[in-house]
Amino acid sequence: MNLSADQSARAASRVVRIAVDCMGGDHGPSVTLPACRAFLAAHPEAELLLVGRPEALEAARDWPRCTIVPASEVVEMDDPVEIAMRRKKDSSMRVAISQVKPGEDGTAAADACVSAGNTGALMAVSRYVLKTLDGIDRPAIATVMPNQKDGYTTVLDLGANVDCEPEHLLQFALMGSALVSAVQGKSQPTVGLLNIGEEVIKGNDTIKKAGELLRSAANRGHLNFCGNVEGNDIFTGRADIIVCDGFVGNVALKTAEGLAAMLSSFIKQEFTRNIFTKLAAIVALPVLNRFKNRVDHRRYNGAALLGLRGLVFKSHGSADAFAFEQALNRAYDAARNRLLDRVHDRIVETLQALPAVAPADSQIPVAKTA
Amino acid sequence: MNLSADQSARAASRVVRIAVDCMGGDHGPSVTLPACRAFLAAHPEAELLLVGRPEALEAARDWPRCTIVPASEVVEMDDPVEIAMRRKKDSSMRVAISQVKPGEDGTAAADACVSAGNTGALMAVSRYVLKTLDGIDRPAIATVMPNQKDGYTTVLDLGANVDCEPEHLLQFALMGSALVSAVQGKSQPTVGLLNIGEEVIKGNDTIKKAGELLRSAANRGHLNFCGNVEGNDIFTGRADIIVCDGFVGNVALKTAEGLAAMLSSFIKQEFTRNIFTKLAAIVALPVLNRFKNRVDHRRYNGAALLGLRGLVFKSHGSADAFAFEQALNRAYDAARNRLLDRVHDRIVETLQALPAVAPADSQIPVAKTA
Repeated sequence: MNLSADQSARAASRVVRIAVDCMGGDHGPSVTLPACRAFLAAHPEAELLLVGRPEALEAARDWPRCTIVPASEVVEMDDPVEIAMRRKKDSSMRVAISQVKPGEDGTAAADACVSAGNTGALMAVSRYVLKTLDGIDRPAIATVMPNQKDGYTTVLDLGANVDCEPEHLLQFALMGSALVSAVQGKSQPTVGLLNIGEEVIKGNDTIKKAGELLRSAANRGHLNFCGNVEGNDIFTGRADIIVCDGFVGNVALKTAEGLAAMLSSFIKQEFTRNIFTKLAAIVALPVLNRFKNRVDHRRYNGAALLGLRGLVFKSHGSADAFAFEQALNRAYDAARNRLLDRVHDRIVETLQALPAVAPADSQIPVAKTA
Repeated sequence: MNLSADQSARAASRVVRIAVDCMGGDHGPSVTLPACRAFLAAHPEAELLLVGRPEALEAARDWPRCTIVPASEVVEMDDPVEIAMRRKKDSSMRVAISQVKPGEDGTAAADACVSAGNTGALMAVSRYVLKTLDGIDRPAIATVMPNQKDGYTTVLDLGANVDCEPEHLLQFALMGSALVSAVQGKSQPTVGLLNIGEEVIKGNDTIKKAGELLRSAANRGHLNFCGNVEGNDIFTGRADIIVCDGFVGNVALKTAEGLAAMLSSFIKQEFTRNIFTKLAAIVALPVLNRFKNRVDHRRYNGAALLGLRGLVFKSHGSADAFAFEQALNRAYDAARNRLLDRVHDRIVETLQALPAVAPADSQIPVAKTA
């Protein structure tokens, strides 16, 4: 992939520029601006494009390494995709996404974009503005979850694709591998296929065929496939990456969120039941806080929209400033480690070696140019 | 459904007889026998048929209200379905299941059967020996999970069916409603359709069509359908019953198990980190135990195989005696509350009113006879 002159200059100087949809999410600038400020303090080599209504971003007018990019409209959390696409062409979401799209000279204003806006709209607008990479039929949403090995498991897709073909699951595996290689520095991250049993005969036809494709890609050295995994393996850390269709991934993610919320409320209830339990809570507080911090979902905020011709990260809509800052960190790490090029390279290499897998209408460049 | 004379007599006297596969599971009689003994002590009106190798069940030879039913073989936890079906025709699993099949006189030896044997084999043998109810294409596995309302959410299917048509999801909803009515005494339990968003436009084609069928059945008064629910709603308690295909249900269940195991090990790690945290643990122990007890997965052990012409309950393979006893309790409650008749009634009533939904090859009796 050709780096533009501006991007090359930024890469050489290690400057990373991120476009932030400051109006998105449940809280808008009251969360995004403090997060941006904290992020800038922690990353002296980063620059931000703050996208939104100038009057709402007034507080950031004189911040160093920041440029306010005006956008007159806001995609609301409950706006249907059609409204975001057709009616709000000057939304902060769309303008932020446009910052990572290379212009005619091949230069993009920013290396990555972050939004806490609604997922459906963000995916649709990103896809429309940026287009997908050659060889990718469908972008996917990838996030990390904590695991027992005190590491992260990257899971995709989390809801962008409700009906997947085996080829899509292979593409997810390649993109997930590129993501983990880039951000966690693992050269051969392991990929598991989410199934209802470990044996190869388990699952429906799509899953079985996906297993064959993944094994085939692994045999050619394009992937480190470790076979079928089950739902609990998201948390055992058996695989660095777990691939599944978006319906299943979304249910798994939300099931985990629901259980975590219930357990957290039960712990609170038990420790506030009476004066004795409240005293016990005071004694146990440092331990409970350590535990809470270890599984704090805010630390894992920031899902990658993979497969687009530009880096887009999605924050939880309800994120607070700490959580939104983590999403900025993820976007920053991905941009700094050239995630876009890595995804592109993986896809090209693998699909060239497995021509049967490439969908008929995808156009794969025969040689990598950058 | 015609009650046999023996079953009617048992029903009148409130005697419930349960056939127990004493050899199944990871631990066999060392777990099942103590569980049976505790169960009998708690249920003076229950009788047990203890199925297995007589020499392994020697300890129970003189127990009151117990009959040992010999079976010479054991289905191992890793036996493929074919082995269980074709090679081990005198397995404790198969003999136990046969106890709930009515003989030529319409009399079955037991009202329900419980096994901790491997799920695939248990479902296949049950289906082969007992057959499915009229109007049911596929049996489903239903279990309960705790929710924030301090109640239970019943989820089905959990893995028996990896590819479901909309009609199957309707059948699951009807069977789940019958189960919750029978065991929890709720006359109009609510049913949610597991999806990736609440709006009716969400999900894949199967889910959307299933939503239409469920709404239509609800409009005719056959179901209390509360619309789409998401993964987290398993634990919010928004619906009494959540229906999904077996692939999704299995992933959700195992994801929850995996997260619970990780959180439990993290709590343990934090409280055993050093002398101070260990002291805190001693102080907090009563509270932590109360919490642990509240979410103890052993309390929820015992999944129902629904849609068969007989009641079969599945215990976790790794269940200890306490957990296995809970599975016996569930089977007991279901048998005592005529679950089989209730499922049958629901199916007949609904499918008669919705003829278009009935698969062409299903034979639905025109009138209920019992």
